[in-house]
Amino acid sequence: MDDKLKKIRHSLAHLLGAAVLELWPDTKLAIGPAVDNGFYYDFDFAKPVTDKDLGKIEQKMREIFKSWKDFKKTDVTEGEAKKIFGHNPYKTELIEEHAKAGDKLTTYTSGEFTDFCAGGHVENMKDVEKDAWKLSRVAGAYWRGDEKNKMLTRIYGLAFATKADLEKYETMIAEAEKRDHRKLGKDLDLFTFSPLVGPGLPLWTPKGTILRNELDNFVWSLREAKGFQKVTIPHLTKKELYETSGHWEKFADSLFKITTREGKEYAVKPMNCPHHTQIFARMPHTYKNMPQRFAETTMVYRDEQSGELGGLTRVLSITQDDAHIFCRHNQIRDEFNGIWDIIDRLYGTFGFELRVRLSFHDPKHAEKYLGTKEIWQNAERELEAMAKARGAKYFLGIGEAAMYGPKLDFMAMDSLGREHQVATIQLDMNLPERFDLSCVNEKGEKERIVMLHCAIMGSIERFSAVLIEHLSGNFPLWLAPVQVKIVPVRDTHNEHAEKIAAELSAAGFRIDCDTSDGNMGKKIRDAKNNKIPYTVIIGDKDIEAGKISVESRDKGQLGQMPLAEFLEKMEKERKEKR
Amino acid sequence: MDDKLKKIRHSLAHLLGAAVLELWPDTKLAIGPAVDNGFYYDFDFAKPVTDKDLGKIEQKMREIFKSWKDFKKTDVTEGEAKKIFGHNPYKTELIEEHAKAGDKLTTYTSGEFTDFCAGGHVENMKDVEKDAWKLSRVAGAYWRGDEKNKMLTRIYGLAFATKADLEKYETMIAEAEKRDHRKLGKDLDLFTFSPLVGPGLPLWTPKGTILRNELDNFVWSLREAKGFQKVTIPHLTKKELYETSGHWEKFADSLFKITTREGKEYAVKPMNCPHHTQIFARMPHTYKNMPQRFAETTMVYRDEQSGELGGLTRVLSITQDDAHIFCRHNQIRDEFNGIWDIIDRLYGTFGFELRVRLSFHDPKHAEKYLGTKEIWQNAERELEAMAKARGAKYFLGIGEAAMYGPKLDFMAMDSLGREHQVATIQLDMNLPERFDLSCVNEKGEKERIVMLHCAIMGSIERFSAVLIEHLSGNFPLWLAPVQVKIVPVRDTHNEHAEKIAAELSAAGFRIDCDTSDGNMGKKIRDAKNNKIPYTVIIGDKDIEAGKISVESRDKGQLGQMPLAEFLEKMEKERKEKR
Repeated sequence: MDDKLKKIRHSLAHLLGAAVLELWPDTKLAIGPAVDNGFYYDFDFAKPVTDKDLGKIEQKMREIFKSWKDFKKTDVTEGEAKKIFGHNPYKTELIEEHAKAGDKLTTYTSGEFTDFCAGGHVENMKDVEKDAWKLSRVAGAYWRGDEKNKMLTRIYGLAFATKADLEKYETMIAEAEKRDHRKLGKDLDLFTFSPLVGPGLPLWTPKGTILRNELDNFVWSLREAKGFQKVTIPHLTKKELYETSGHWEKFADSLFKITTREGKEYAVKPMNCPHHTQIFARMPHTYKNMPQRFAETTMVYRDEQSGELGGLTRVLSITQDDAHIFCRHNQIRDEFNGIWDIIDRLYGTFGFELRVRLSFHDPKHAEKYLGTKEIWQNAERELEAMAKARGAKYFLGIGEAAMYGPKLDFMAMDSLGREHQVATIQLDMNLPERFDLSCVNEKGEKERIVMLHCAIMGSIERFSAVLIEHLSGNFPLWLAPVQVKIVPVRDTHNEHAEKIAAELSAAGFRIDCDTSDGNMGKKIRDAKNNKIPYTVIIGDKDIEAGKISVESRDKGQLGQMPLAEFLEKMEKERKEKR
Repeated sequence: MDDKLKKIRHSLAHLLGAAVLELWPDTKLAIGPAVDNGFYYDFDFAKPVTDKDLGKIEQKMREIFKSWKDFKKTDVTEGEAKKIFGHNPYKTELIEEHAKAGDKLTTYTSGEFTDFCAGGHVENMKDVEKDAWKLSRVAGAYWRGDEKNKMLTRIYGLAFATKADLEKYETMIAEAEKRDHRKLGKDLDLFTFSPLVGPGLPLWTPKGTILRNELDNFVWSLREAKGFQKVTIPHLTKKELYETSGHWEKFADSLFKITTREGKEYAVKPMNCPHHTQIFARMPHTYKNMPQRFAETTMVYRDEQSGELGGLTRVLSITQDDAHIFCRHNQIRDEFNGIWDIIDRLYGTFGFELRVRLSFHDPKHAEKYLGTKEIWQNAERELEAMAKARGAKYFLGIGEAAMYGPKLDFMAMDSLGREHQVATIQLDMNLPERFDLSCVNEKGEKERIVMLHCAIMGSIERFSAVLIEHLSGNFPLWLAPVQVKIVPVRDTHNEHAEKIAAELSAAGFRIDCDTSDGNMGKKIRDAKNNKIPYTVIIGDKDIEAGKISVESRDKGQLGQMPLAEFLEKMEKERKEKR
């Protein structure tokens, strides 16, 4: 968000606060910041306020709007500020906090409304385009986001620089709602939830499982070409593994813990790296068999708060297409490069635009990081040189590295212009220390190795959600759960339809040959609703001509063609993953 | 075990008891039955006895053996029995128990040794062949198998009808030790255990994972041809699912339970059927889309006692190649038949001989079973007719059915003549009731369906263990983790070797091209130790002739042949799964 837009949004939050106070003077105001698409303000209302009140509040805002000019700044002492806001526990808490931190305390006044605020408004309310904002919805929100605190009422508004921008945004949101993966997931019968199994634990249907497996197989084919090998680990471990790795403490809150019948402590894995180290460590290694690349698509489990679970974007059971590379320092660049190739290929296949953040350490706080300065500088120099050499769209994120190594964070822009954080490649100098992982080098010495963590889809659940919305459920041929629907014109054509179906199946295509009683029109509509790439109609004229009639989901009627031609066309399309 | 052999073994248990009492008169005897390969006796020794004492005990047995003739039976009252064995708490417990049950109480005497015993001995000790038995080992065993009781010392002996039988058995055991899957698993680098992860939680290496996946893919290819569809479920569930299914109570001891951060109760799944019902139940069904066949290879977890864990035969993480068929009553026979085909094919591929037990209900206790008499009779009649029609080796197990349906239990005989309980097909009339699963039939009525449970390998861990020992690690080409090892005679042949390797890899074979520094002899020995099906040698003569020299693991030297001929041979072998 650019600075000007941020100021517009923040100014509108003040306006919202003013309107609410005029309508319900005994309301206590909490905070009102700018956000990505507008602004909000959190209120502690004496009486509940709902979406139905939004019209009235917005009307009041527009009334006040006309009378506001600028934001008058006043420096205040803690005592003065508390005098103004003393009746309000939220503002009081903020005032005390800022005073304690030694911040300058300021208030800003427009019209009759004064707020405790650090600034960042438009110079004049004329800079706010009156048709470029509106209130959007009411939601609950805990004070300071902490569920132990009181639940406040949050009123959201949309705000943009121009009316056109607002309309564009609203169109995008409407389209996004149509494409909501929760809706399409049900319509296309990809996954389901059961109240008995619980939220955040999706059950994948036959069609959804085809989607998952095709995606996973594709990533694996890219990995196999880069020398990865599959391994298999259980989902449980004794506590000792995570005590050694440090995760027992670090993941304390989100770890599902188990006490066995014998009173031993176990955990369900929240990540795979510690287990994978134990496969690497099963035997001594020399430089000759480095690097080693272990890949495994497997579920990890994290104890999320149930309020945060929704669809596939936040789940308890996360299927990671995970991999770990055990390598020497001088192999880091090649290995990063190899994984980057895979990421480019996967996201490119679906037309996502990628940006990458080089998440580096902050040299001003060198003490925060594990490993020597030299290793960090070398690694980061190589990563940036690589990004340059690849001609990638990248930017630096100084201070964004993990404590134990720099990383590449990939962002994918979808067809609605929304950006999603997706794949990550991460260097790890920590676990090799903790698990004493090494190889014998050319000089016969023990050499400490490093690990790379590299999920490509990240989680299949989240990737599927992004992909379903990006494609609006129109999966390309290779990925579509049903690839061709065959519709006989009348039941006298059923036998011929089944012969065609058998030939297509034999070529490895997933076919739905609909010889049920229903009428042809309904069958074709079903094919469209299910977003099946091709529909083949079989009638008298087709049989006479020794051809089939083909309709493409994406290109409309393709007319009659011999079966062999259709097969060839589909095989090419499947192979090229178009 | 035939009755005569059982009598021989039981008689030898008495002899063992007598010998121990002569050597250490203050020993307390517990029980001494016949077992599958001989006999044992459990003792409460005043001083520890170990394997080192076996020679002395056996010598004493042979001394007494000469003087024994028959077993003299005496009827006794509870009072009389207690008088004889009153100093012995184990015998006293048994006497009281049998008296309470109203059993006739008897003692048997040979020479100077009298035991409290219900009978079953040889008529004369001459019937025991003196060279056909020996003591074998000492182990610990809880009194009555209950870990809360005192740990006793168990002395095992081997006993057969003839010396030749004993020798045959010992040869088999020695061979079984060589083939022990725990040993071969390590030698062939298939799986490993980590003390940090814990016992019963195998970590599968790249080679072991190939083995697992090839097996699983084969079973899946057989399933796919029968109309199965893959589904995917998480490993966790809320308690509610198992309360509905009845497993929360039934699996109470072996369920890994979890309490979430919000205090909710979850479990790690010990089986997949309840989850699968929830996929079936996501929408209404009609007779037109019945049956539905869901397959999923996934890990289940059971809280076993750590003392019972060992290698792959008893693990906490069990990978089931599981499937559930939801079908109508009139589809049961066809579905059983289809699964039976798959079982025959898998076990036949490896040369296992199969027997099947038809586990039926006991009509004398009809009250024990769910479902109507008619359903049971129909189902069982059809299962037996099917077994007959298939010409299968089968026998009836009356009373062996589960409460909720009859089953087929398959037993596989391995190459050492050991029989393993493997696949099971089970009819289930219970879960469809509990989860209210139905379809709408031709008359438009709601019709209760049934479920079939049908794992083919059962657990991949246990199946792998059986298979490794059955094949002694000599996996057929299609299954071998490394299929061909290429050995250049000198390093000048490395380049050519790599070209050959690339061509074989391109045909989808798993190749190890060994261009390391080591000498050729060692490389070939390594190939043999790793039980690689083919070794290809590349030297000057091969390059000149435009051929390769091939050695087969199973058939020895195959001589020179063109690469194309070798490829064709391998492709045929792989396809035919020989």
